[in-house]
Amino acid sequence: MGTVIECVPNISEGREEKLVSEIAAAVRGAPGVRLLDVSSDSSHNRSVLTFVADAAGVRAGVRALFDAAVPRIDLRRHTGEHPRMGAVDVVPVIPIRGVTVEECVALSREIGKEIAERHGIPVYLYEDSATSEKRRNLAEIRKGQFEGFAAKMEAPEWKPDFGPDAPHPSAGVVAVGARPPLIAYNVNLATSDLEVARRIAKAIRFSSGGFRFVKAMGVMLEARQVAQVSINMTDFKRTPLFRVFETVRAEAARYGVNVIGSEIVGLVPAEALIDAADHFLRLERFDPTQVLERRLREEG
Amino acid sequence: MGTVIECVPNISEGREEKLVSEIAAAVRGAPGVRLLDVSSDSSHNRSVLTFVADAAGVRAGVRALFDAAVPRIDLRRHTGEHPRMGAVDVVPVIPIRGVTVEECVALSREIGKEIAERHGIPVYLYEDSATSEKRRNLAEIRKGQFEGFAAKMEAPEWKPDFGPDAPHPSAGVVAVGARPPLIAYNVNLATSDLEVARRIAKAIRFSSGGFRFVKAMGVMLEARQVAQVSINMTDFKRTPLFRVFETVRAEAARYGVNVIGSEIVGLVPAEALIDAADHFLRLERFDPTQVLERRLREEG
Repeated sequence: MGTVIECVPNISEGREEKLVSEIAAAVRGAPGVRLLDVSSDSSHNRSVLTFVADAAGVRAGVRALFDAAVPRIDLRRHTGEHPRMGAVDVVPVIPIRGVTVEECVALSREIGKEIAERHGIPVYLYEDSATSEKRRNLAEIRKGQFEGFAAKMEAPEWKPDFGPDAPHPSAGVVAVGARPPLIAYNVNLATSDLEVARRIAKAIRFSSGGFRFVKAMGVMLEARQVAQVSINMTDFKRTPLFRVFETVRAEAARYGVNVIGSEIVGLVPAEALIDAADHFLRLERFDPTQVLERRLREEG
Repeated sequence: MGTVIECVPNISEGREEKLVSEIAAAVRGAPGVRLLDVSSDSSHNRSVLTFVADAAGVRAGVRALFDAAVPRIDLRRHTGEHPRMGAVDVVPVIPIRGVTVEECVALSREIGKEIAERHGIPVYLYEDSATSEKRRNLAEIRKGQFEGFAAKMEAPEWKPDFGPDAPHPSAGVVAVGARPPLIAYNVNLATSDLEVARRIAKAIRFSSGGFRFVKAMGVMLEARQVAQVSINMTDFKRTPLFRVFETVRAEAARYGVNVIGSEIVGLVPAEALIDAADHFLRLERFDPTQVLERRLREEG
């Protein structure tokens, strides 16, 4: 089995099912692309496409995506809860197998250049592809959103990495970059006190002194009356899932609150779960090559 | 990706490296076979080969194995700690992917018939392939060992499923059968008191009232002065790894003993570890198709 790169573009359309499925069909039809998942959120008015391919396939998939999305999505008429700056808002490029971060960075630059040339859309390289520390963080790039970008781009520090110095009239701007696989992970608490979830989120997230590769916030699951610590694990190899779970559990105990359970949203690399089993089973000298499926893949 | 069947033949030679590698080379050379592992134990004087293939490949691999092993291994001169009855002692056939237990049972019967016809070796079908309850258990078939088999086979109830009514002079008899993947799993205790390990083993094993798919015994790791509960998990889907670990931990606590750690010997299906992560992370509504590698395989 050869190179596997995952690409998880977010588009600013999550209500018109027909539009989303036309765009998904375009991506699915690109040579070498395997579209694994399409998830739409209507309150966010946003969809996430997940596909895998080799480098050439990722280029073809992103090209098909923009060719289909740019004429169909007009941000001047877009409303939704989630902040956004582009019709295609962000294009993460994620090394899965047989490919380095550096190769994904190089690929993200090629993709960015092509988007700018083909559609006249300004492109910001982010995360591992960022050309300055400030551009590493997507939230920082997105600040001001679509409506504020014309003004934001007047500052020299917000000159894009590729493309014109003003946003595309209907498609805005886009962030493209290589990053590790992200795990969307939520821990549910046996309390309806949102403040407890917020305090725990603050304790574990990087921005307020917690784990380096954790973003977190407290949210309320109204229907269940359950407070939830909603987490993005941005590098599970360096900040592992089990450690975050254990820390949430310990912090919750400090408020006399139990953990009901946790949730993984979307896809998760097997390694993240196998690391957790390794930890909780206290395995001695466990070697990931002992996993049968992995051995099958490597010898294949 | 198509059918994957695992075959884990045990041969009665674990000291003469040259012989083992000649036999392994024969298996590796069979069409469609991927030999994943060869482990020899000199005190047992026994080696375990692990290979995967589709049904035709497993037949070819077993044929190559017997063609190489029968002329090279003479049980009349064999000594070792592990009980044995054949030059090739047992041939487990294990469904991994895209194949049912029933198909593996059918395959084991074809294999057994061919071994009997080609080499004149009596074949007993065991585990899921067994033709009577008594033959389900390998230990029951093997009782009497090579030296006792001529006498044992005089009883009508020990007429083999295929082949002659007397053992092969140098190669003895063989058991062939379909079974679920087996996990060799040990839990190490923070004590040098072997009796504690023995009592815990008794508490968890099927034969003395414990879990249905657990075999266990207490052993002493002399070098570390650590008592160990040595476990065979014979069906991890129905008796899961995490439950056995948790039970050993609880039983050990009853003697004031901590668990130092646990070990997986050899290969383990990813599912067994992912189930453990699911348990310890208290995942809600987790679906194994969320595992990225599995999605890649299924869509591929």
